[in-house]
Amino acid sequence: MADEVDDFNFEQRHGKSRVRVARVWRNNKDGRHFIVEWNVSISLLSDCLAAYVRGDNSNIVATDTIKNTVYAKAKECSEQLSVEEFAIELAKHFTSFYQQVHAAIVKIVEKPWERVSIDGQEHEHGFKLGSEKHTTEATVKKSGALTLTSGIEGLTLLKTTKSGFEGFVRDKYTILPETRERILATEVTASWRYSYESVFSTPRKPLYFSERYLDVKRALTETFYGHPKEGVYSASVQSTLYDMAKSVLNRIPDISSVQLKMPNLHFLPVNMSNKDNNIVKFEDDVYLPTDEPHGSIEASLSRFWSKL
Amino acid sequence: MADEVDDFNFEQRHGKSRVRVARVWRNNKDGRHFIVEWNVSISLLSDCLAAYVRGDNSNIVATDTIKNTVYAKAKECSEQLSVEEFAIELAKHFTSFYQQVHAAIVKIVEKPWERVSIDGQEHEHGFKLGSEKHTTEATVKKSGALTLTSGIEGLTLLKTTKSGFEGFVRDKYTILPETRERILATEVTASWRYSYESVFSTPRKPLYFSERYLDVKRALTETFYGHPKEGVYSASVQSTLYDMAKSVLNRIPDISSVQLKMPNLHFLPVNMSNKDNNIVKFEDDVYLPTDEPHGSIEASLSRFWSKL
Amino acid sequence: MADEVDDFNFEQRHGKSRVRVARVWRNNKDGRHFIVEWNVSISLLSDCLAAYVRGDNSNIVATDTIKNTVYAKAKECSEQLSVEEFAIELAKHFTSFYQQVHAAIVKIVEKPWERVSIDGQEHEHGFKLGSEKHTTEATVKKSGALTLTSGIEGLTLLKTTKSGFEGFVRDKYTILPETRERILATEVTASWRYSYESVFSTPRKPLYFSERYLDVKRALTETFYGHPKEGVYSASVQSTLYDMAKSVLNRIPDISSVQLKMPNLHFLPVNMSNKDNNIVKFEDDVYLPTDEPHGSIEASLSRFWSKL
Amino acid sequence: MADEVDDFNFEQRHGKSRVRVARVWRNNKDGRHFIVEWNVSISLLSDCLAAYVRGDNSNIVATDTIKNTVYAKAKECSEQLSVEEFAIELAKHFTSFYQQVHAAIVKIVEKPWERVSIDGQEHEHGFKLGSEKHTTEATVKKSGALTLTSGIEGLTLLKTTKSGFEGFVRDKYTILPETRERILATEVTASWRYSYESVFSTPRKPLYFSERYLDVKRALTETFYGHPKEGVYSASVQSTLYDMAKSVLNRIPDISSVQLKMPNLHFLPVNMSNKDNNIVKFEDDVYLPTDEPHGSIEASLSRFWSKL
Repeated sequence: MADEVDDFNFEQRHGKSRVRVARVWRNNKDGRHFIVEWNVSISLLSDCLAAYVRGDNSNIVATDTIKNTVYAKAKECSEQLSVEEFAIELAKHFTSFYQQVHAAIVKIVEKPWERVSIDGQEHEHGFKLGSEKHTTEATVKKSGALTLTSGIEGLTLLKTTKSGFEGFVRDKYTILPETRERILATEVTASWRYSYESVFSTPRKPLYFSERYLDVKRALTETFYGHPKEGVYSASVQSTLYDMAKSVLNRIPDISSVQLKMPNLHFLPVNMSNKDNNIVKFEDDVYLPTDEPHGSIEASLSRFWSKL
Repeated sequence: MADEVDDFNFEQRHGKSRVRVARVWRNNKDGRHFIVEWNVSISLLSDCLAAYVRGDNSNIVATDTIKNTVYAKAKECSEQLSVEEFAIELAKHFTSFYQQVHAAIVKIVEKPWERVSIDGQEHEHGFKLGSEKHTTEATVKKSGALTLTSGIEGLTLLKTTKSGFEGFVRDKYTILPETRERILATEVTASWRYSYESVFSTPRKPLYFSERYLDVKRALTETFYGHPKEGVYSASVQSTLYDMAKSVLNRIPDISSVQLKMPNLHFLPVNMSNKDNNIVKFEDDVYLPTDEPHGSIEASLSRFWSKL
Repeated sequence: MADEVDDFNFEQRHGKSRVRVARVWRNNKDGRHFIVEWNVSISLLSDCLAAYVRGDNSNIVATDTIKNTVYAKAKECSEQLSVEEFAIELAKHFTSFYQQVHAAIVKIVEKPWERVSIDGQEHEHGFKLGSEKHTTEATVKKSGALTLTSGIEGLTLLKTTKSGFEGFVRDKYTILPETRERILATEVTASWRYSYESVFSTPRKPLYFSERYLDVKRALTETFYGHPKEGVYSASVQSTLYDMAKSVLNRIPDISSVQLKMPNLHFLPVNMSNKDNNIVKFEDDVYLPTDEPHGSIEASLSRFWSKL
Repeated sequence: MADEVDDFNFEQRHGKSRVRVARVWRNNKDGRHFIVEWNVSISLLSDCLAAYVRGDNSNIVATDTIKNTVYAKAKECSEQLSVEEFAIELAKHFTSFYQQVHAAIVKIVEKPWERVSIDGQEHEHGFKLGSEKHTTEATVKKSGALTLTSGIEGLTLLKTTKSGFEGFVRDKYTILPETRERILATEVTASWRYSYESVFSTPRKPLYFSERYLDVKRALTETFYGHPKEGVYSASVQSTLYDMAKSVLNRIPDISSVQLKMPNLHFLPVNMSNKDNNIVKFEDDVYLPTDEPHGSIEASLSRFWSKL
């Protein structure tokens, strides 16, 4: 929303962040319950310049109203749905219900509640919090044009071997020795864009995007770890990141691009001595883990016909 | 360490906190690797009053030296061991190596690295970060007297039904309605004390305390959730907490007391209306999750012969 | 609250945490406004064993009711008061209003809203968030017996010189060199106990405890920094901590004990080289600040007649 | 850095994050010390595709080397300089020293160490941590082309009156009542772009950008609060945000655009009752502060000739 005002160029958006909602579905036939917990953030791109410039709120959708709508729309979800579907539904509502709203951006983080099992039997209504989180961001324009990305936050992976770093630039500021044996650890933040460009063309299959989320997670982790016995050698975080990104695009046809942020969470070899003693001599056994500072490696890979 | 100085009563301790160490063991026979990552905090109770009062550091064990010792001791662990054993070993070192150290308190939080499986096969050297954390605190005196507690942090549990709260005090400040149908959610912080009172009497079985940790976690969660189909009715967080604590003591004979902190993480029923519309009518479906404010319920249960 | 039940020894408490409340007072004469924002946590020690053991809630004060009471009591404060007074008022309420409540523990953290000045003139109703926080904890028994402590959180102090560390123990694990020139930095967490032992004997002067809070802060900081030009040499965190604690007791007669936690936030000298170059040679100029790990130094100093 | 590889479009960057450095300058004439503490993150856009695709690291500047360079460059700063100047110096180094580096992005957060005063006299070497933080981001291309933005994080402002919200859209989802009397609170995150488009054209005056930072802070806060006695009425966060942004551009000619994020940190009126009692009746006195959920209002204002 760019406007010209007071000889300036002005862009604005407003909305509500950190709206928390949980939705429970109860299957009366088999007694199973389902729960999702979502943390929703909504931004509206709307014609409401007068509010900024003249204190005239007549076109402002109050952020309190935006919040209420999240609950109203959650109520309307009579069937379990993916977080992506809910984001699209919410965004569609704002662009269709309000004349002045041109576009809506809905971001959601899903809390990783996982069904528990007791003695190998799935519990009907018991859940436990897991670790990494499923995220999504849907941008919908009044025309129905859609940009849909999904993501993972906090997917923290480590392998104790099959990782090295050699042959890099050596100059007057270089101290790091080369190695073919180190720990590789990273906290993956991934986001990927689906190829659907309209709210009218997304797959109708229930929980379609929830399945794709699991597919992406599997592609990322299997590529990172390699075969259970042989593993796979990583020549650098860069190289492993590229292979992970490629496996996502190769496996899942309706993903048009993927972005990975993979900080290198260093596990430094511990060698310690003073003039009289060798306190610790490193033999691929004792490490100092640190995340301050950390390497930051990020990249995006996209099919040619897409634009990130 | 209480001293009389300048007509005051003085107590002090010093040490090093947030010492991070990772230890890898490699099984050459079957190729399996094991890793632990520990965040260690150490406090020494020692005779070093002169440092405080007269600036004389001659009895001070430098906190840098304390840190170095963590790595030296990790190096000496040629076999995989439980976090409890490592805490005891460290504490024993400080009380025996330094004449002026009367007691050492070692707290450790273990990062929940879990071995991954690919296609149902355990990976030899691949690990992923899980959720709840194993903690321990060992206090060792020069005599060998031991206080050993272990704990869980961040065990977040939820059930979508079989929970209510009725018959509580109603007075002029009471608004909360009674209910027999609500979501029950909590983030359990547990700690339990083992009955071993000397460093010479702890079990010698390798990874003994790691197994007990899993036993406690199983006792807590099974009691919270109940049977996979029927569940178990909770009349209050208080009541469920008591049952959980009792199951720990009933199942594990060498635990002498257990303390549970179970904040009530509220999932509030959503009912919304304005004068024209019923926006959301609650039908056990839409909830507002909140942890500010939260109920705080905590208790400790101990066998009679123990002192918490 | 210790009970014997099922052959176990049982102790419990419950309450509400993270109850946020703000209170505004408006001076109609001069137009000045005053605001406090408090984060309140309340624990009740009460006779409600049946709730834990038999699911009988008839003696349970609901945590929701506890929360409501915070707002009701804030409303009743027609005059501005210190956070300590509010904590005592709240605690008194619970022990006197409910027969089954033996004792109440009220902890409050005050958000550091500070009045702003524009062009040197104090603003009537404008405030800005500062840094360190004023805390308090009041424990009141049904008899009126009082334990009152106050505290500071997040008081982060640094001096670039007049600090050293020499003459400490050197042994086979010691690497740290001695120095008479280093940066000293710490984040002080202080708590101090007032000598008033009954809710009937506390000072009546309005905002008495708010003034004492400023006195303590002044004693701590002036002792840490020393004279604006000469400063004061610190032989160790231990030595500086002791001097700071002593200055509190020496300056403020109705404080009976003070506890200080002063982590040593290290600023490590930077020296870097590889075989060809001296990358950085330390000359009291370039430091690596780190708080993982950090030294942990804590102590309490009390007048003889007090018990911490 | 976009490349075509394996029929995909590929973009990448790497660097080091959370590099902490402190720099002290000592004025030998008057004894005054100066300290800055910076948290530096660096990203390099470079020709190193082979590392990703073929495991060939020969063009990779190791992130460890990037870190070392931060300390080397800090050492070279013989005179005190602004965080902006340091960011530009660092970025220039990477683009000129390495043939394969096309552009460097340097982000820095400065820790708010403030000189203390004792009895009204400035301390020569004593500092205390304040609240809001000065940030910067410099992007430098090999050609010397510069994009320079600076910012503020955590500037938390509140006024107890002269704020309302009326005349907004009322629809079936609207509950919020209109008001002309409420608390207005926000945590401002600001960033502004300077008009200098080349590393060769920035002002040479020492600490120039540090002064501009104070100018911006003054413009923002004075506009938010208004006159010390009369204040200024805010018709909405939107309206106040716009006035704040405009005052920055009006006062500081070499800032070409400014972006403000101003979450509405709600202070909700407290009204509580049950069927028998009016527990709290709101009279502009008791509020419930909450930041989950919060309104999110953000906008950017730029001179026509600039591009954000």
